[in-house]
Amino acid sequence: MTTEASKTPSPSPLLIAPIAVRWRDLDAYNHVNNSNYLTYLEEARLQWLLTLDGEWYSAECAPVMAASQLNYRMPIEWPAQIDVELFCERVGTSSMTVGHRMVARDDATRIHCDGNVTVVWVNPKTGRPVPLPDAVRNAVTAAA
Amino acid sequence: MTTEASKTPSPSPLLIAPIAVRWRDLDAYNHVNNSNYLTYLEEARLQWLLTLDGEWYSAECAPVMAASQLNYRMPIEWPAQIDVELFCERVGTSSMTVGHRMVARDDATRIHCDGNVTVVWVNPKTGRPVPLPDAVRNAVTAAA
Amino acid sequence: MTTEASKTPSPSPLLIAPIAVRWRDLDAYNHVNNSNYLTYLEEARLQWLLTLDGEWYSAECAPVMAASQLNYRMPIEWPAQIDVELFCERVGTSSMTVGHRMVARDDATRIHCDGNVTVVWVNPKTGRPVPLPDAVRNAVTAAA
Amino acid sequence: MTTEASKTPSPSPLLIAPIAVRWRDLDAYNHVNNSNYLTYLEEARLQWLLTLDGEWYSAECAPVMAASQLNYRMPIEWPAQIDVELFCERVGTSSMTVGHRMVARDDATRIHCDGNVTVVWVNPKTGRPVPLPDAVRNAVTAAA
Repeated sequence: MTTEASKTPSPSPLLIAPIAVRWRDLDAYNHVNNSNYLTYLEEARLQWLLTLDGEWYSAECAPVMAASQLNYRMPIEWPAQIDVELFCERVGTSSMTVGHRMVARDDATRIHCDGNVTVVWVNPKTGRPVPLPDAVRNAVTAAA
Repeated sequence: MTTEASKTPSPSPLLIAPIAVRWRDLDAYNHVNNSNYLTYLEEARLQWLLTLDGEWYSAECAPVMAASQLNYRMPIEWPAQIDVELFCERVGTSSMTVGHRMVARDDATRIHCDGNVTVVWVNPKTGRPVPLPDAVRNAVTAAA
Repeated sequence: MTTEASKTPSPSPLLIAPIAVRWRDLDAYNHVNNSNYLTYLEEARLQWLLTLDGEWYSAECAPVMAASQLNYRMPIEWPAQIDVELFCERVGTSSMTVGHRMVARDDATRIHCDGNVTVVWVNPKTGRPVPLPDAVRNAVTAAA
Repeated sequence: MTTEASKTPSPSPLLIAPIAVRWRDLDAYNHVNNSNYLTYLEEARLQWLLTLDGEWYSAECAPVMAASQLNYRMPIEWPAQIDVELFCERVGTSSMTVGHRMVARDDATRIHCDGNVTVVWVNPKTGRPVPLPDAVRNAVTAAA
């Protein structure tokens, strides 16, 4: 069943993904460019999805970005090792909102970015929303 | 003087920037990756800043991203020509919030993305906010 | 028939593709990063392929990179408008070697990069080379 | 002294750099895009330079790309862990040629790419070649 589930944020992270900053992530300001933050989030989200027990992607059901909200709190330099912490902020019928924090690996109190991303599962052939895969819903419920 | 200015959004765009989508902007889903939307916005924003009459960047005063909020409404494919429309949504002491719409060049009713970005001017040496450059404030006031 | 064809370089360009440099193409040295040159070439090559009269891509036949050789002769800055000139240097059974020059649009004697790229057509399912599509061979012969 | 040194390639790698492939490195063919290979090489090269005992970069002396030659031997997919092996192929007055192999971390006989890159040290203010920094020359000599 895929009715509207809990909107209570999970207090424990779904995953903490280590990201190695690349020099090419820097822009002419010598800081990681704001667009790369979304790439770090994407990599972390996919690493989480790969850990799920069950199918989260098929020819009829694929996650796409619906919205993103990022607060850039402290520049990221190179070289650096970043940890991306992902949280479940909301679970819906077809979508979930994934909160995040990007912190320095050697000091998790140094927060480079926080915010969230809403991902919706759609049928790639039609672009229409489909129910959240059970593998995703179960994993989020287990983490809550 | 750099006191808090109008919070009324400007109804007319600051700029409409043409962006040529590159094949490399696509990801494995065969759509423009969500991170590239920020690159399109950055390019449009810089094209606008280059049109200003006066200095918007110096060794003591540079614009950096504070926050971004994007709604992905319709995938962008390749090849495509996109127009990025920028609006002034808010002007503050040190920052401005730039609203945007990304539309198909041949049909501006096809909205691929909307949202906004907050840019703050800081002293690159200290990271502290500095007053919004007059060139920026004047341009925004003129557009309002 | 797809026997080995002429190895004589074509003196006239297959295409001259305009490329708008993006600020994000810059790296921390404030010059276009060397990896983006390959993206410019890719975009130009695809623009050429899109002009062909006939099929150059199918489920059984897709172009992939076999080799690249680039000489970086003069940095590219931002903003800049670049022209990528593509030439046929060699046509083989399954592959072609595409020479290139990247020049300033307002002064074609300013050469930022030259070199070539070898593209081979393969069956994506097997990875094995397939005969060069007739549309490609015909276009190259016509240009020679 | 910075006279022309040995041209004998070093048989032992200067460095083996681990690279984590990102999903965003894939293009619409679902393989790592050819341009990202140069980013992997850049990251490996910088990791090597960071290990040097002495200055390899200053306001008067910075390494820039002069040429690259890459053979794409086997596609890279995601997820994947790649090792980039760097070798000294040639040392000159102002430049060095760095050979490379990109191999699967779990099977170094699977070669995804080989080739080389020539890096020249220049004065960023003039663009003119400068002598290879001692730190670089010493490291290469020690590895030979």
